[in-house]
Amino acid sequence: MYGRYTQDLGTFAKDEAARLRLQEGDTPRPRRPSELLEYTQGRCAPCRVCTLQCQRFLISKVGEDWVFLILLGLVMALVSWAMDFAIATCLQAQKWMYGGLDTNVLLQYMAWVTYPTVLITFSAGFTQILAPQAVGSGIPEMKTILRGVVLKEYLTLKTFVAKVIGLTCALGSGMPLGKEGPFVHIASMCAALLSRFLSLFGGFYENEARNIEMLAAACAVGVGCCFAAPIGGVLFSIEVTSTFFAVRNYWRGFFAATFSAFIFRVLAVWNKDEETITALFKTRFRLDFPFDLQELPAFAVIGIASGFGGALFVYLNRKIVQFMRRQKTINRFLMKKRLLFPALVTLIISTLTFPPGFGQFMAGQLTQKDTLVTLFDNQTWAKQGISDEFEYLGILEAWRNPRSNVFVTLVVFILMKFWMSALATTIPVPCGAFMPVFVIGAAFGRLVGESMAAWFPDGIHTDSNIYRIVPGGYAVVGAAALSGAVTHTVSTAVIVFELTGQISHILPVMIAVILANAVAQSLQPSLYDSIIRIKKLPYLPELGWGHHEKYNVRVEDIMVRDIHYVTLNCKYRDLQQVLHSTKMKNLPLVESAESMILLGSIERTQVGALLSSQLSPQRRLMTLRQKVLSEDGHRLSDSSIRFQISTETSSGTPARPALRKPLKPALKRVPSSPPDSPPAGGTDHTGIALKSLFCANAATEPTEVRAWPSPSLPSPAWPLLALVGSSYPLACPMAPPQILEWEEQQLDQLVDFSSAKIDPAPFQLVEHTSLHKTHTIFSLLGLDHAFVTSIGRLVGMVSLKELRKAIEGSLTGKGVKVRPPLASFRDSTASTTEADTTALRQLWDRHQHHHMPREAGPGGDDDDDTPK
Amino acid sequence: MYGRYTQDLGTFAKDEAARLRLQEGDTPRPRRPSELLEYTQGRCAPCRVCTLQCQRFLISKVGEDWVFLILLGLVMALVSWAMDFAIATCLQAQKWMYGGLDTNVLLQYMAWVTYPTVLITFSAGFTQILAPQAVGSGIPEMKTILRGVVLKEYLTLKTFVAKVIGLTCALGSGMPLGKEGPFVHIASMCAALLSRFLSLFGGFYENEARNIEMLAAACAVGVGCCFAAPIGGVLFSIEVTSTFFAVRNYWRGFFAATFSAFIFRVLAVWNKDEETITALFKTRFRLDFPFDLQELPAFAVIGIASGFGGALFVYLNRKIVQFMRRQKTINRFLMKKRLLFPALVTLIISTLTFPPGFGQFMAGQLTQKDTLVTLFDNQTWAKQGISDEFEYLGILEAWRNPRSNVFVTLVVFILMKFWMSALATTIPVPCGAFMPVFVIGAAFGRLVGESMAAWFPDGIHTDSNIYRIVPGGYAVVGAAALSGAVTHTVSTAVIVFELTGQISHILPVMIAVILANAVAQSLQPSLYDSIIRIKKLPYLPELGWGHHEKYNVRVEDIMVRDIHYVTLNCKYRDLQQVLHSTKMKNLPLVESAESMILLGSIERTQVGALLSSQLSPQRRLMTLRQKVLSEDGHRLSDSSIRFQISTETSSGTPARPALRKPLKPALKRVPSSPPDSPPAGGTDHTGIALKSLFCANAATEPTEVRAWPSPSLPSPAWPLLALVGSSYPLACPMAPPQILEWEEQQLDQLVDFSSAKIDPAPFQLVEHTSLHKTHTIFSLLGLDHAFVTSIGRLVGMVSLKELRKAIEGSLTGKGVKVRPPLASFRDSTASTTEADTTALRQLWDRHQHHHMPREAGPGGDDDDDTPK
Repeated sequence: MYGRYTQDLGTFAKDEAARLRLQEGDTPRPRRPSELLEYTQGRCAPCRVCTLQCQRFLISKVGEDWVFLILLGLVMALVSWAMDFAIATCLQAQKWMYGGLDTNVLLQYMAWVTYPTVLITFSAGFTQILAPQAVGSGIPEMKTILRGVVLKEYLTLKTFVAKVIGLTCALGSGMPLGKEGPFVHIASMCAALLSRFLSLFGGFYENEARNIEMLAAACAVGVGCCFAAPIGGVLFSIEVTSTFFAVRNYWRGFFAATFSAFIFRVLAVWNKDEETITALFKTRFRLDFPFDLQELPAFAVIGIASGFGGALFVYLNRKIVQFMRRQKTINRFLMKKRLLFPALVTLIISTLTFPPGFGQFMAGQLTQKDTLVTLFDNQTWAKQGISDEFEYLGILEAWRNPRSNVFVTLVVFILMKFWMSALATTIPVPCGAFMPVFVIGAAFGRLVGESMAAWFPDGIHTDSNIYRIVPGGYAVVGAAALSGAVTHTVSTAVIVFELTGQISHILPVMIAVILANAVAQSLQPSLYDSIIRIKKLPYLPELGWGHHEKYNVRVEDIMVRDIHYVTLNCKYRDLQQVLHSTKMKNLPLVESAESMILLGSIERTQVGALLSSQLSPQRRLMTLRQKVLSEDGHRLSDSSIRFQISTETSSGTPARPALRKPLKPALKRVPSSPPDSPPAGGTDHTGIALKSLFCANAATEPTEVRAWPSPSLPSPAWPLLALVGSSYPLACPMAPPQILEWEEQQLDQLVDFSSAKIDPAPFQLVEHTSLHKTHTIFSLLGLDHAFVTSIGRLVGMVSLKELRKAIEGSLTGKGVKVRPPLASFRDSTASTTEADTTALRQLWDRHQHHHMPREAGPGGDDDDDTPK
Repeated sequence: MYGRYTQDLGTFAKDEAARLRLQEGDTPRPRRPSELLEYTQGRCAPCRVCTLQCQRFLISKVGEDWVFLILLGLVMALVSWAMDFAIATCLQAQKWMYGGLDTNVLLQYMAWVTYPTVLITFSAGFTQILAPQAVGSGIPEMKTILRGVVLKEYLTLKTFVAKVIGLTCALGSGMPLGKEGPFVHIASMCAALLSRFLSLFGGFYENEARNIEMLAAACAVGVGCCFAAPIGGVLFSIEVTSTFFAVRNYWRGFFAATFSAFIFRVLAVWNKDEETITALFKTRFRLDFPFDLQELPAFAVIGIASGFGGALFVYLNRKIVQFMRRQKTINRFLMKKRLLFPALVTLIISTLTFPPGFGQFMAGQLTQKDTLVTLFDNQTWAKQGISDEFEYLGILEAWRNPRSNVFVTLVVFILMKFWMSALATTIPVPCGAFMPVFVIGAAFGRLVGESMAAWFPDGIHTDSNIYRIVPGGYAVVGAAALSGAVTHTVSTAVIVFELTGQISHILPVMIAVILANAVAQSLQPSLYDSIIRIKKLPYLPELGWGHHEKYNVRVEDIMVRDIHYVTLNCKYRDLQQVLHSTKMKNLPLVESAESMILLGSIERTQVGALLSSQLSPQRRLMTLRQKVLSEDGHRLSDSSIRFQISTETSSGTPARPALRKPLKPALKRVPSSPPDSPPAGGTDHTGIALKSLFCANAATEPTEVRAWPSPSLPSPAWPLLALVGSSYPLACPMAPPQILEWEEQQLDQLVDFSSAKIDPAPFQLVEHTSLHKTHTIFSLLGLDHAFVTSIGRLVGMVSLKELRKAIEGSLTGKGVKVRPPLASFRDSTASTTEADTTALRQLWDRHQHHHMPREAGPGGDDDDDTPK
């Protein structure tokens, strides 16, 4: 966030140039683009004005946030509904095939296994070919993007298409995969594309800060329209993707997610699937006595066990990925036949779930949705002491097995699904892990609930009324707890309420979710953070629960003291040395090596550009040419005077190209990728560009060269230099030893920073900032490095790397001085520290002794009192 | 946040001093305070070690966040429950009195009116005497405190007691007042007190960042245990108090609020009020068909109307306060008789609600809780075309009036309660406005619902089943919408679900709440922001919905350019001038008036202290004494040499007083209030203090003077100076003209900043930072001013005031250059702007021409190449 101000500068420069240019003209309010057009093109003006006014009206409407959010919600609801429809069709097709072939078990098996294998393989292949970025959940990437990191190709139309089609196929196969994570990604891509589309109508959508806000809202929409859970969606997306959340963006998420969830459910009503808008997995638990107080320990047990289970899931998932990567023979084989791994995994999983085979012990024939519906069922499955034999109706049939009881089936289901889900989510197709985990949690909750029901057939309550135990409630609690543990979120509780349409179990759910989170967070990172680590995305680990030493580690303990810097009065040789000796992407620019006052930071690429432009063949030729000119004598003096003039005029009247630009991008998106820009001396320098053109890199930019003879700039220097350029051909050779000598000469010159891009206010910390505060600032502002200063003097640097090390504790063991707890109290009477004051005194002394050229007081009226 | 680093410096200084001192000794790990004690006190060491180890164990446990949060939740649940119990008793007493006197209407009236008047008057008087800070809701103050502003006396035990007792009395009176806002405040005070209590066991609780985190959690607890709504509580408190929310604090809020809500409800079960844990205002709406799709327009109407109503409520509330303040005669009268206003208001309101009087048309006999229960009732009140006459049972009786129908009663109720609530919340007692507004919203919703039920007696649904309209559902929607509109929050939706225990109406509630928010936010600030403005608390207005121009206003448009500054080489006379000419609390310190390189910021008080210490009588005497000494000739030269020595040694071995301090505060809280500290030359300067002792303010600190003859410091200068001090008495007069002359001399000296407290890294912005970004940074970091720099040079300053003006648009009309939308696109190829480069060039040129004493390259190996 902070490091990007430099991008604004370009915009500002151009704008300022345009303004200055127009102020020279006689237009009274010269800043409306429409008027600009009127001014320049007289003929079809009325027609154009009308069009433009219409367009402006459109812009003023389209520019509103709510239009964007409604469009986003609508599109995502349609996508979600269509995808659900397609998935349901796919799953029905499999069921139909399986049902139609019930005469031959082998054929049945073939159909049962081939169908998902083909779908998954297609999904993997399609994604691989079209956009490999679409693989996986997408939440880790979104987390990184929302932190301010630019991940290319993650928000393109190609990825969108790949993700939508790949996800539909993957879920249509019936594998234990989820759609939540991918939906967050799909919604974000949708927002990015929509924003790009709407930017055709206006420039608002070009704003980076706004785009980030919209992406945050889009994440909420993704979850919201996936589960028809607007509140849970917003909260889940906040917890999963943000470190610091701007409350002012809150309404955006709620608005879009509510609209999206509404449309999503209305589509179901219109399609006559439902009679009215209700929850996705509606439950019908007792309202008057949802649970007994004495059942709470059982819920707490579910929570704690889910915490361990969640941590185990994350661990297992990571280990599988690492195992696949580490085994070189496997790896090499798989790299060659990329589609083999998905096919193999699908084969294994679908074989095991084959209903007439092992699948009968784990309700293999049920789809994920059916499984959830049955698990949240209101009835008790286990035989109860005195009561009637329970009748399994409809899809509940799947859980009954004549050869085993329901407990065995549930246990087998949980164990098998656990590793299956962990394995299946490593397949390179677009897929999430939330839903599989949710189902496993529900099954675990159901198991506990059934056990409780068998243990207390008449309920625990001792009063007159008999309130039986509701195993379905336990399933709800288990689902929320396990999914909360895996994702490290509390908002799964809210999602569960919205999914089931009942909030009666709020306290058990909250208790279980919090306990599960406490256990899981202390054991493992969240699934998304784990993926971030595996993928080595730029991230900042969270500060853990109650790590007090974080308050006591200071920046000075972790900062890099030995940093390379660029001084304002350095030579090109020094730049060369710095480039050779460090790999930092941003170099600090200090006043001088002695004062070390930090003036700004300069990008490494800029330094390289400065150096290469100094040593460029064009410049060499220019020197040669000037040498020839100086032999002519009178010409040189003439041009140097002209040069002076042109510098002055150019700062007043910038070049025409800079003026025309502001109109175009209304219809065309300009890619904003500063590292790709041509080094030093781009196209829009507004005056400075001209100046540097005269001084140094004359021929680097062919467009600018072509612009030279254009009559648009009435500067007196143009014709002369164009003449000079034409009279002496460019191909003017120099011998290699001469070149070396010339280069050595050039390296000894002082650096001219005027053409370099400098971040004038890099982020600064002081030595005594605590690690906790540093972490806060880094995550708040999305920094990746900060300079440590002491009264303006640069003393060190902290980058994400150091911070990450310090938080992960690898440094704590080695060198970080962890201050004792009691040392962290504060005392108000203290003044500056010794180090600071010494530094200040040095500075002050230097001023005293060296007598700076002008020693002016703050009033400015005694400027010339002490100039001796 | 950023401006407070200086506070840390003192701590650091002392710690560093202790460490240095101990490293000189021979203790191998010198940093544990227990070991320090062992080291110093040999006799009862084993006993002490044991005690300390126990204490350390306690600290390690007590220091955990969850212990604190559990304690907080427990205490708050008990407070909430006890208060509810007391309030219920109070209300029952009123009912009993009213019921017992039903023979005489006049006596009944007297009882009905006197009881609340006495309670309110007592509450107002008690609060006024004990702690006036307890008046009102407390949410605005908490919002300000969480932004980082220190509001004294708002988190003390006195305020806690005043608020709890005042609130109980106020609510016990039956006035339309709420407990939510005050509970947020009470919970925060509870957290602050608990944290202070627990700091007896350990130093963790001294950390400011941590305290803020805990306060944020406490706000959630406040709402959570007030409504037994953990999730809604967390969200509401976030929305109401935070601008940016750290997701890592999320779990704290959830954990504490859940625990608190749990205990709160468990207490009800143990007290046999309830059979098990359920919602506070349980509803029993249909689950299978909660509402028809075609009812949604009605819900939307409720939302929009509530939006207008909410804005009107805020407006009315503010106008009443402003009216009371503006009318001087009223004001003067009320200022004298502070308790008259509350008594008067109570009298009016209770007269109007007197059940046999006008109260019969507005269900006056019902308490707030009963009103809500009846409004959320499942039955339809209005007569339905074909169906039976509805029987009013129990408390529902109150809504029936033989002389009017239920619609009239509801309308009268809404209108009367509306102004009554707006008036009652201005009474100077601890009270909130959430609950009254909630009730009015519910009544409005009920009105719409009853109308719909009368309009469509058999429901709207056209299919075979008849689903009648549920007016109770409308009441729920209305309650959420109106309270959401008044507070500008979306989370009232969640609170409603948790309060009623049903989530079936999620979509209507969300739609209504969002629409209400959209309308209300575009018309008025939230109730809490309105109070913040009335009370003139330091705040930062929110950026509104979709104000795009915020992206296009730059810092340079709003910054103050003409700022006063202090230069490093200025004279005391300049300081005096600056102090006279500006009222800024923080003055920038620049290198020189020419370079304008920002080195840090210095507090106004510090500048004053510097000036006064320079002109202090002590220093004058010292000069006089030295003059006398110089007459002795040989003595002066001696002491100046000694002075040199003592300066060097003191920086190595700091004074003993600085060493002893770190042990004490483990058992005693040190107040952290830097502005109250003795100016310039406090007690703990570690070396520098000694130096300044020698130079300047010798006798300002009597403790230090007494420390002089102590044998702890073996510096050779001590006996000498002590001798000097004793041989020449302090009372040595100087004539007034001499004094003036001396002062003039002193003012012409250069300032010695070594004893001043300087913030070495004040926050810096660049000129082109957008207003949007500036707002984000200010609210993220809780800044109140930032300096605007351009490549290290100070060019301006932005404070909260300018930012506020710019956001509120008062500047937009006058002078802010709002850039056209199309100008805000960005182009990656641009380089630095003209202004920046020119500045850089100036700096660079200065280096070229003036030849700074040492021009070292970054490598540092060619230091002495160009020293000519």
